[in-house]
Amino acid sequence: MADITFRVKAYSESPTKTIAKARGFEAIIDEPEELNGTNDGPNPVEYTLIALSGCLNVMCHLVAKELNFTLRGVKINLAGVLDPEKHLGIPTSQRAGYKRVDVEIIPDTDADTATLEQWIKIIEQRCPVSDNLVNPTPVHLTVNK
Amino acid sequence: MADITFRVKAYSESPTKTIAKARGFEAIIDEPEELNGTNDGPNPVEYTLIALSGCLNVMCHLVAKELNFTLRGVKINLAGVLDPEKHLGIPTSQRAGYKRVDVEIIPDTDADTATLEQWIKIIEQRCPVSDNLVNPTPVHLTVNK
Repeated sequence: MADITFRVKAYSESPTKTIAKARGFEAIIDEPEELNGTNDGPNPVEYTLIALSGCLNVMCHLVAKELNFTLRGVKINLAGVLDPEKHLGIPTSQRAGYKRVDVEIIPDTDADTATLEQWIKIIEQRCPVSDNLVNPTPVHLTVNK
Repeated sequence: MADITFRVKAYSESPTKTIAKARGFEAIIDEPEELNGTNDGPNPVEYTLIALSGCLNVMCHLVAKELNFTLRGVKINLAGVLDPEKHLGIPTSQRAGYKRVDVEIIPDTDADTATLEQWIKIIEQRCPVSDNLVNPTPVHLTVNK
């Protein structure tokens, strides 16, 4: 199959607020007031969890269909922990981003435990957003004035 | 400084559409029709780029302030390339997520090239969302019925 390229164009409305456009859609990213923002939307690291939740939902349903069980729906609870020091420029041995991301998936299904164990293992291997977190993904930044 | 935990709660509205809540905000994630969705929002991998754009904006302004130059604003163009085979369960040696992410940052500033080179290097090192992509981030999935 051919590679697919996804694109987003964004601009700063303020030092903390960004307007991002993906095809016809607009997303507002901002920081809460306690992180010096104007609280007009989720913040960047919350959007990482939002991306992961959406990808897991697609994978949950796709793999349930492959394993031939009925999935009536899923709830997904996500939490990520980070130390803000590196981001703020305070000398630290901690990394800038999430140290770990914990995800609880609550499926509405009659499938048994063994099936669900197999299900989650396949989801883990094939979820694109998980893959980009778990494994190194090159990010190339260029500046053009 | 104390660690900060960010949380998102999500549920499936359909096999492709997810409603995700971060504090008081709601984000809609869906797939376009050509990827079997109902096209009600950006898709999961587009949200990864949205997260990155918001984080880079914050970092661009924070680091400009540290380097003592005026940044009137930034435009950020992002593109990610992936092969959909692994995600779809087709045997492949390709990874599931983006193979690479390319980001063009267009600053509105009078700063010189040497300053901007230093600026982008610091941004790269300290941006939390970039860090979670470039370096391995553990993701722990658990299933609770």
